[in-house]
Amino acid sequence: MKIIQIGILGFGIVGTGVAKLLTQKKELLEARTGACLKLNAIADIDVITDRGIALQDTRLVTDAMEIINDPEIDIVVELIGGTSIAREFMVKALEQGKHVVTANKALLAEFGNDLVKTARTNQVDLAFEASCGGCMPIIKSLRESLVANDIRSMSAILNGTCNYILTKISRDGSSFEDALKTAQELGFAEAEPSLDIDGHDTAHKLAILNSLAWGMEINLKDIHVEGIRNITPVDIEFARSFGYTIKLLAIGKVQGEHVEARVHPTMINDSNPLSYVDHSMNAIAIDADATEKTMLYGHGAGMMPTASAVLSDIADIARNIISDARRRVPILGYPEDNIRKIPILPMKELVTQYYLRFEAQDHPGVLARISGILGENSISIKSVHQKGRNNNGKVPVVMITHTAKEEWVQKALAGISASDCVVGEPVIIRIEEENQE
Amino acid sequence: MKIIQIGILGFGIVGTGVAKLLTQKKELLEARTGACLKLNAIADIDVITDRGIALQDTRLVTDAMEIINDPEIDIVVELIGGTSIAREFMVKALEQGKHVVTANKALLAEFGNDLVKTARTNQVDLAFEASCGGCMPIIKSLRESLVANDIRSMSAILNGTCNYILTKISRDGSSFEDALKTAQELGFAEAEPSLDIDGHDTAHKLAILNSLAWGMEINLKDIHVEGIRNITPVDIEFARSFGYTIKLLAIGKVQGEHVEARVHPTMINDSNPLSYVDHSMNAIAIDADATEKTMLYGHGAGMMPTASAVLSDIADIARNIISDARRRVPILGYPEDNIRKIPILPMKELVTQYYLRFEAQDHPGVLARISGILGENSISIKSVHQKGRNNNGKVPVVMITHTAKEEWVQKALAGISASDCVVGEPVIIRIEEENQE
Repeated sequence: MKIIQIGILGFGIVGTGVAKLLTQKKELLEARTGACLKLNAIADIDVITDRGIALQDTRLVTDAMEIINDPEIDIVVELIGGTSIAREFMVKALEQGKHVVTANKALLAEFGNDLVKTARTNQVDLAFEASCGGCMPIIKSLRESLVANDIRSMSAILNGTCNYILTKISRDGSSFEDALKTAQELGFAEAEPSLDIDGHDTAHKLAILNSLAWGMEINLKDIHVEGIRNITPVDIEFARSFGYTIKLLAIGKVQGEHVEARVHPTMINDSNPLSYVDHSMNAIAIDADATEKTMLYGHGAGMMPTASAVLSDIADIARNIISDARRRVPILGYPEDNIRKIPILPMKELVTQYYLRFEAQDHPGVLARISGILGENSISIKSVHQKGRNNNGKVPVVMITHTAKEEWVQKALAGISASDCVVGEPVIIRIEEENQE
Repeated sequence: MKIIQIGILGFGIVGTGVAKLLTQKKELLEARTGACLKLNAIADIDVITDRGIALQDTRLVTDAMEIINDPEIDIVVELIGGTSIAREFMVKALEQGKHVVTANKALLAEFGNDLVKTARTNQVDLAFEASCGGCMPIIKSLRESLVANDIRSMSAILNGTCNYILTKISRDGSSFEDALKTAQELGFAEAEPSLDIDGHDTAHKLAILNSLAWGMEINLKDIHVEGIRNITPVDIEFARSFGYTIKLLAIGKVQGEHVEARVHPTMINDSNPLSYVDHSMNAIAIDADATEKTMLYGHGAGMMPTASAVLSDIADIARNIISDARRRVPILGYPEDNIRKIPILPMKELVTQYYLRFEAQDHPGVLARISGILGENSISIKSVHQKGRNNNGKVPVVMITHTAKEEWVQKALAGISASDCVVGEPVIIRIEEENQE
């Protein structure tokens, strides 16, 4: 039986999960692939802590270069995370002619184009199913299953921490702070939660998915990113009264010669299957011309779901090695020469519907003044909700607009803020209708 | 650029869709695969009817053998359907050393084991993503993505006609007959609907999916199959009052040394994401040990969704040809030598919860008598619903049981039917709880 030698860099949560699957599922993996996937070595600065796995014939080393330089190793699995040392090791592994599997979305989003080039120069595979959507086969779907489709749009819940917090606020009426605290206590959120809750992790994933969907260079810097810090139970309650749920969505969409690429809290209605995706679950809805709407749903993080995705990449590469079919599927779904630079639509050009909430002065004529400023900026209102709950002379005014240009909306909001009609900053949440008018 | 020559057998709905994608998406397919996927020829007894596609350089022939015997053809796409002539052509194509792509679930479910052997003898690929779940990448997920998972269970909505009819009864309170008529008028159901509504189409798909999930020989004959003809608005209404939705599910589940394999109307509750899958949409929920619960959702039929799946197989085989990686992934997910015969659990051994509805005589003591017979058969009742709607001296009595063995339930129902407590046949619908007690 052919033996495929595997080395793991990073013996943290996911590294432990991958080591578990490689050892505990040895028989299953052999039965399915017809090869022995041998966990040759694991590198980590901490080789002492017991991870609860009985490792046989697996070297534990503190120097990743021992694995990278080992001529016996076929596949290097990078599970260190971050963009500094992980990048250095990955480049060296590719240069040593190793196939690389990674779950590192930040590294791919920031330096993916260069890594793809390095892999090409060295004629090796670079696989990353675990980088987006955990165990969901989203990378494989985009690279292989949807091959004959022009993808029109993708919208996705890609961060379990944010989805958990939004579900918690929605169900219990918790404040954002309390929901975050609970998420941290339950292990759904990091002690330093900014990468998740400010939307950057979601943006990393969107940068990768957009590239695969449209054969475009990975472009993180032009993605518009907003997190969920400002979401309040009040807005969730108003959303519900209009038939909407608030989710942190990653949205990619073809718009003429551009691609929309944005991450922000979004109101979606009940006909959108993403509205049922709760707690820490992830999902991605794809609208393509042949398939029409499809959705994948599953755990987007966690030790074993992520390890499952890493193993699907390892098995793919093992099957390539067995068949002598190096680089059988292009890394980004298109051969490198066919990958284009597609510009991302500037945010001010976005056309969508908006939910706007103002703390208005409870004076006669205030509603007319707000509506007037919106009208002057060509924004027409679909519905208004003004509750008479006078709170220190202020009342919340909520409006849903018809589709309008982001630039106009921002200009109108600046005008309204500068007037004496409202106090504080208006709340703005974009709406994604299934069939935008 | 490498040219891959493709011949289609059957120029019906799906054949037309595949021809459309191969011609209209020529550039996209070349950009993604780096090869030219050339539609060399199409065989159909009707070569005259205009299918609305401008075919260039594609031969239209009436004799399928012209394609099968053409040494230039690399891939034969079988889209004739049925199990007679399609089988004959498929065997001949495999014997001629052609890779075969098909959407034919009936053929695979009935003769798949032999076809796999023929493909092996001739060292060619046999691919069938379009056979189950339309455009959803379910075959690829089972064969490739879940490679390191022990799959615990699958439950799936795999027939759009049935799901449309059940949705219609549920939403509008239509009778089964009226809902079927509407489905036929809208083109969701065939004039001869038995294959769909009696559950056989779903069973064909389950036979294939079970094989892939557990590395077992395809076994259609031992699958328990019930259709949806007897579903009434009354039962849907009662189901709703208990928090359940009724769906026609295909269920595969590991049960000790057996695999459960059954197709029947099933009550599921709101925490099951399948309960939101409405109209003609399909979905499959998979519970595996590493991923835990995942779900795929999409169109399970229709010209272009099905053609999209066929194209993903064609592209896979094209990539194999380009890389000289014939038979890179085993046809049933496991190399043929590793495929086992796994027995299907006899239906009488099934343990699950039940919904039972009786038309009871409106006499004192009838409820005690029914409960008594259930008790004598070790069936304990979780809840009872007796509405006082006396209808000609009869009242509907509805019961939800705790988990019980099918054999006991059938015995109890026979006893109750034979008593003078009830009139007509009792209604029995199995319940699939997310976390069965």
